[in-house]
Parts: sequence; structure tokens; C-alpha cells
Amino acid sequence: MSKIAATNGIDVTRLVETIEAIRKEPTLGAFTFRAKSSWQDGTHNVGAIAGFDHAGSKDQTRAAAFVLQGDEPPVLLGSNHGPNAVELLLQALAFCYAVGYAANAAARGIEITHMDYEIEGDLDVRPFLGLEGPRPGFTQIRAKGRVASPNATPEQLEDLCRYVQETSPVKDCLANRVPVETTLEVM
Amino acid sequence: MSKIAATNGIDVTRLVETIEAIRKEPTLGAFTFRAKSSWQDGTHNVGAIAGFDHAGSKDQTRAAAFVLQGDEPPVLLGSNHGPNAVELLLQALAFCYAVGYAANAAARGIEITHMDYEIEGDLDVRPFLGLEGPRPGFTQIRAKGRVASPNATPEQLEDLCRYVQETSPVKDCLANRVPVETTLEVM
Repeated sequence: MSKIAATNGIDVTRLVETIEAIRKEPTLGAFTFRAKSSWQDGTHNVGAIAGFDHAGSKDQTRAAAFVLQGDEPPVLLGSNHGPNAVELLLQALAFCYAVGYAANAAARGIEITHMDYEIEGDLDVRPFLGLEGPRPGFTQIRAKGRVASPNATPEQLEDLCRYVQETSPVKDCLANRVPVETTLEVM
Repeated sequence: MSKIAATNGIDVTRLVETIEAIRKEPTLGAFTFRAKSSWQDGTHNVGAIAGFDHAGSKDQTRAAAFVLQGDEPPVLLGSNHGPNAVELLLQALAFCYAVGYAANAAARGIEITHMDYEIEGDLDVRPFLGLEGPRPGFTQIRAKGRVASPNATPEQLEDLCRYVQETSPVKDCLANRVPVETTLEVM
């Protein structure tokens, strides 16, 4: 990473080169990401996130899969081996906002010295349990960011927050419909 | 857990009692879940999932927060400290489907001896990078489940798969719009 061009730990020269390369050859923008899960017992599953495809080729940079535990708390019949699925969804939004903010701040020359997010979501489990109630998913998600910068005005930081919301992949997947095709193989 | 009533590691007696309790007192269905993230450097963030609220009270069953690493791969300017946000979103769908399937199978007396999911999603990073292209989020998600049961027909297992899709909180958050309110505090 170039020492001169790094802002917020983002190599801005490489960021600009990446954008230019994809602008010239749009197929370089195409990714297919994957996650697997293996059921253990009850509400406990073990997840694995390994390779992904970029422009039709498999990425080879990950020596091993990232392993994640998923479970429910006791009140939802689990044993707290890990967070549950909807908590992981909120975590994904937090990570997405943070990456978008750090990278776009770097591109604008805005230095970040602190950034954290707290995301919360309201969910009624009645539809999941087969009872009448609101939708199965979150009825409302609230995301609160906190950011400190030594060289940007509050207006610049708020403008960036709006831009990040508009371009965030996870925010888009929540705010707008995603086609999900589900198939089952009986072994 | 009652040895007699456990199917797929799910305590069916407690499941039925939980459903009856919420049917009588619908406010017991209300949860607020949370995730936090703390920015480290570049595209690297550390997440924490700790307590949640149930029917207005804080759950106390988790002694420590679940800690998650989030990062991008090198091709997206990161260092592979962990999966990225959109991979985590796919993982959340896998966990949600698996919990829904195991629990509802238990409620129907269907024994599961194997269950795994592979989720993949197509995403074009151009909108994230400020270039023209499709939406910022996934344009398509494909979920493939594999299940084995010694006491259910393929038709029963496929019927359950349809039911789980209709009642899955994460599937609902992807297939239908969720209101997301984002605020920023400048420190």
C-alpha cells in the first residue's frame, strides 16, 4: 500500500485504479458471493464463508473459510452458541455502512479518527411461530452512526452519510426487494 | 430439555408452550435485536452482538458478546480479516432457513438427520463504486437446501420448505422492503 495515498487505511490510488479499470471493462464489477451452513442440532448451525467468484474466476486469497456459529438464545429454544440470523443481518448492515463510509471518506480526502455503529431492529416472532401478527421480518431498523474527523465539517460528514446509504449493498437489499430463489434437494 | 419431547434437538413441549403463551399475551412476541460495530482501519471492522430486549426487558443469558470480524478481500481493498457484509447477509439467510426448518419439522414430527444450505448471490460493485450499473445490492440470491429425513416423504419435506420460506424473518427482510432509519452523530 502506498504510504502517500492511504487515507483511513484505504489505498486511494488503488481505489481510483480499480474504479477506472471497472469503468473501462464493466464485467470486472461482477461478483458472486457464497455462504454455507451445516445444521448441528436444534437451532445450532455452523456457517462457512470461503471463496467467491469475481468476473467469472474464483478468488484464491482465502486460505481457509471463515467459520461462524449460529444459534438462538434460550427464550427462542436455543443455547446461545452464537448470534441468531436476524442479529447477523443487523451486523451485516453495520459492516456495510462502515466500509462504505471509510472508503468514500478516503476518496473525498476526509480523515476518520473514530467510527462506530449501533443497529437495532424490532421483530415480532408471532408470524415465525405460525401466529397472527405483523410480517415475519423486521418492522423497523434503526442505524446510529458516530463519526469523528479532524478535517471535515459536520455538513460534509452528513452528506457522506447520505451518499453511503444510497450506495450501500446491504441497505439496498433491505430497503428494496431482492429476488430469492429457494430450492430443496431431498437426500 | 425433556428427552421424550425433543425432536431434532428442539424441545417440542416448550415450543408448544411458548406458542400458547404468546397467543394468550401477544406482547411476548416483541423483540428488539442489536448489533454494534467498531471501525478498525480500512475496510476492517469488529462487530459485537450482545443483549436484546424481549417484551420490554433485557435478556440476561449471554455472559459475553459474540465478536465478529468484518473485512473485504484484497480485490475490494481489504485484508481478509473476516467475511464482508454481503457474505454475512447470505450467512444470515442460511441460518434463518435452517432454524425455521428444524423447528417446524419438529413441530410436525419430522425427524431430520442431515441438513445443509448453500446460498449464493450475484452483486455488481459498480453502483457501490459510484459507476453506472444495476442496483447496489444483490440482483439475485439462490438458496439451495439439502435435507434427509427417515420418516417424511419428499412431498412433506418440500411442503415444509415452502412454509419455512413464507415465515422466515430474513427471507422476508430480503423479499420485501424494510424501513431503515439512519442517523449520524458527529463527535
